[in-house]
Amino acid sequence: MVETKPVDPSEKPDSKKAAKKEAKKAEKAAKKAEHKANNEQSQNIVEENDVSAGNYGNLPLIRSADSNLDRKFTYIKELNKSLAGQNVWVRARLHTVRARGKQCFIVLRQREFTVQVLVNVSETISKAMVKFSSNITKESIVDVEAKVVEVGAAVAGCSQQEVELLASQLWVVSASAPQLPLQIEDASRPEKGDDPEGLNIRVNQDTRLDNRILDLRTATNQAIFRLEAGVCRLFREVLTEKGFVEIHTPKIIPAASEGGANVFTVSYFKGSAYLAQSPQLYKQMAIAADFDKVFTIGAVFRAEDSNTHRHLTEFTGLDLEMAFNYHYHEVMLTIGDLFTAIFKGLRDQFQKEIEIVGQQYSVEPFTFLEPPLVLHFDEGRKILAEAGVEVGPEDDLSTPAEKLLGRLVKAKYDTDFYILDKYPLAVRPFYTMPDPHNPKTSNSYDMFMRGEEIISGAQRIHDPQLLTERAKHHGIDINKIAAYIDAFKYGCPPHAGGGIGLERVVMLYLGLDNIRKTSMFPRDPKRVTP
Amino acid sequence: MVETKPVDPSEKPDSKKAAKKEAKKAEKAAKKAEHKANNEQSQNIVEENDVSAGNYGNLPLIRSADSNLDRKFTYIKELNKSLAGQNVWVRARLHTVRARGKQCFIVLRQREFTVQVLVNVSETISKAMVKFSSNITKESIVDVEAKVVEVGAAVAGCSQQEVELLASQLWVVSASAPQLPLQIEDASRPEKGDDPEGLNIRVNQDTRLDNRILDLRTATNQAIFRLEAGVCRLFREVLTEKGFVEIHTPKIIPAASEGGANVFTVSYFKGSAYLAQSPQLYKQMAIAADFDKVFTIGAVFRAEDSNTHRHLTEFTGLDLEMAFNYHYHEVMLTIGDLFTAIFKGLRDQFQKEIEIVGQQYSVEPFTFLEPPLVLHFDEGRKILAEAGVEVGPEDDLSTPAEKLLGRLVKAKYDTDFYILDKYPLAVRPFYTMPDPHNPKTSNSYDMFMRGEEIISGAQRIHDPQLLTERAKHHGIDINKIAAYIDAFKYGCPPHAGGGIGLERVVMLYLGLDNIRKTSMFPRDPKRVTP
Repeated sequence: MVETKPVDPSEKPDSKKAAKKEAKKAEKAAKKAEHKANNEQSQNIVEENDVSAGNYGNLPLIRSADSNLDRKFTYIKELNKSLAGQNVWVRARLHTVRARGKQCFIVLRQREFTVQVLVNVSETISKAMVKFSSNITKESIVDVEAKVVEVGAAVAGCSQQEVELLASQLWVVSASAPQLPLQIEDASRPEKGDDPEGLNIRVNQDTRLDNRILDLRTATNQAIFRLEAGVCRLFREVLTEKGFVEIHTPKIIPAASEGGANVFTVSYFKGSAYLAQSPQLYKQMAIAADFDKVFTIGAVFRAEDSNTHRHLTEFTGLDLEMAFNYHYHEVMLTIGDLFTAIFKGLRDQFQKEIEIVGQQYSVEPFTFLEPPLVLHFDEGRKILAEAGVEVGPEDDLSTPAEKLLGRLVKAKYDTDFYILDKYPLAVRPFYTMPDPHNPKTSNSYDMFMRGEEIISGAQRIHDPQLLTERAKHHGIDINKIAAYIDAFKYGCPPHAGGGIGLERVVMLYLGLDNIRKTSMFPRDPKRVTP
Repeated sequence: MVETKPVDPSEKPDSKKAAKKEAKKAEKAAKKAEHKANNEQSQNIVEENDVSAGNYGNLPLIRSADSNLDRKFTYIKELNKSLAGQNVWVRARLHTVRARGKQCFIVLRQREFTVQVLVNVSETISKAMVKFSSNITKESIVDVEAKVVEVGAAVAGCSQQEVELLASQLWVVSASAPQLPLQIEDASRPEKGDDPEGLNIRVNQDTRLDNRILDLRTATNQAIFRLEAGVCRLFREVLTEKGFVEIHTPKIIPAASEGGANVFTVSYFKGSAYLAQSPQLYKQMAIAADFDKVFTIGAVFRAEDSNTHRHLTEFTGLDLEMAFNYHYHEVMLTIGDLFTAIFKGLRDQFQKEIEIVGQQYSVEPFTFLEPPLVLHFDEGRKILAEAGVEVGPEDDLSTPAEKLLGRLVKAKYDTDFYILDKYPLAVRPFYTMPDPHNPKTSNSYDMFMRGEEIISGAQRIHDPQLLTERAKHHGIDINKIAAYIDAFKYGCPPHAGGGIGLERVVMLYLGLDNIRKTSMFPRDPKRVTP
């Protein structure tokens, strides 16, 4: 590590020190030459007697020219009092910069972590260097060599409050264009209530999405997508532990999976194909092919012209399918337990991320019961009826009814997650197993988070004859689903499953108001960019 | 557990036993009635004095009628001498059945595990039950109650050789159609050399794929896809451990990602969109958005009319992208180490699966070095030149040259995996970072398994100006890639990455001859079904 403290000339150097000094001198000369070249290249004016020459400027584009540089960078989150007095190198974004006389205050940012850097005119820091520093554009990536200094009063507005950095070198690694289409501070401003600073500048959703690479740099977005990765990891870990096998199902399919509506058409060489609206047929084929318990995570496509807060035309499906012995509740409760495990994992492993999101958006913590609450569809109807909302025994729940039921269930049971079992047969797809005891209901379930559906599932009909009957009853052309029916011709265990929308789970877990906040590059009927 | 041993009438029952007997009688009567109903339903003829009545037949379709059945099933792989004398229930496929006089021999199958079941005419087993058993169609799913019996000589042709099962009950859970489009034995027959039994019946690839749910039931396919799931799991575990974040990138994109060739068009509401040929732009945007290290697993689409053993129109991409400090080798070696970890994980955790695949296909075990071998492109050219194959300094390697080089490298270094670094600039995409020391080469690499490319990667240009220059040099319309170039306008760290084809990795690791063997439902220019 290079010491920046100016060497006291009265100090008598020992030979080791002298050698070090020599080496340093040579290094500095080399750097000075490089610096000059760079600055000439970038057309900066270099003062002849700049004491800081060789300690700042625009680095040449990193093209992997040096293979043996072993400079160690310190992460901003690691900067604390224990490093006081030490010299560190930090590569980070320039979050803000402010010049004041002979000083320049910079805030460096790495994700949610920020630290203050001072560039002060001194014996070793020239005015030119301070000027250069104060002109670096926001969002540029810089390399800073600095001494860690403990501060008396906490540094306001930075995550690292006990220390600041006293810069000795400052190099621009990748410069940002000067005009930003959105300001990170604006995109990060709390959206709950009024801002105490009186700054109510917000960034609207489209501006955010049009400039997603900037928008994603906010602490909130960093937290959201780290948590989203956590949901996938927990989903897989829990199911792998239970003996599930991960599979990959085709997205290009020969026929529209559920009757032909809402499906995207793909031109496929000289013919046409479609984009899968769900991996269901393939999951079921895996069950018929003895994989017993399977899951798959992948893109799911819906050509639905729904411009709502919770619809996307492409989303990430967390799907599972499982053979059972006698009763589909074996599967339904496996899914219920899966959610409990995910909720616990998020609560325990993503506390920091949840807190960060909560600082920008006001969110009530997510509550759940263990084991999860299971309500019969008729019980749900009863709770709604008591609140004055009638739902017929063969009707589906409307979205407002679902939301109301969510609130009523929360008030009664204090849970944001519950399972609604035994939906009317009439409102479920043809492949849903009818209830053996009641011809009007079915072996199917939905699960809800904060009153919104996040998984729809059921026991599937595994008998080709009954499947054919039910398809006919639904007016479906048998020829078009022959391949599906044939999957059950050669023996198939009873099975059930469901599909979870990843972005919805994250949106609802965090209590966000729009699914576009939890899709990194969302697709809707009006947006296929960036 | 129900005892099947006939009760000795001379035995004096105590009250507990008597109660048990009563319960059993009632149970049996109920079953008899059910059995009769079932058989009437399925139009079987029931003999009036059938001693086995109630112990066999077709189960009614499992529609989750009983919620409280807690019968415990034993897995075939668990059946061994230690269970001798015990009664067990097994749910499995009827693999084969053979009647001989008053006996019926059944082989039950669960994935790669098989066990022999005897149904013998006796005091409690009627001729009718034996006849029923011998008529069950192959691939039907059955529930068998049986006593585990230790055998003197090993049971030939079964995985469980020390025991067989003496059936007391036998129920068909899900019957298979009698005519199978392919036989599991045929699909499982070793393809290396001649079969010692002289049976050279093989099942061709198209028959297999047309009837994939049957084909996937072979022990080999069960092993292949379990191992494939393992590759994904290892990939994620290694990268998550190193701080990578999983992301999801859109498959529907606004413009053809790499120039427009080989891309599928999707009709998108009133307009058109395309299917992503790679998640690269989005991975890079995640890097520009401060995610630092990212990976994504998802479908990748190539509208290439290539009908070869190693091309698919849709495959699973294991993609990663990583910011580095000074040199793209930081990333290249991370990927190299990732492969080492995957190879070690497969070797240690999937020994059984590798062995099963090896029984059907002759495969040399996969060899690798730790750390992996890295060759400079010029070294590769030299090795080829020594073998008489000249490759120009600015030429790409042809597929035959790659294969030859793979064999030469294997002979010289005893490794099936190696990295070829520093490809000619001319043969790489426009966004590849040119080598700073040699204008004809680039900071790019391919990696090979058994002489076939499985990942192509590089340092990407993270500077909008140089990127624009290079795109123009390649004759690319700058307007069409404006969004891509803009991703680097607001500061971006130097970064590199690559994309791995999952199916290729599994094919080459196992030494299989066709990528359709490692895609569960493969898609090629001629196949979009099932």
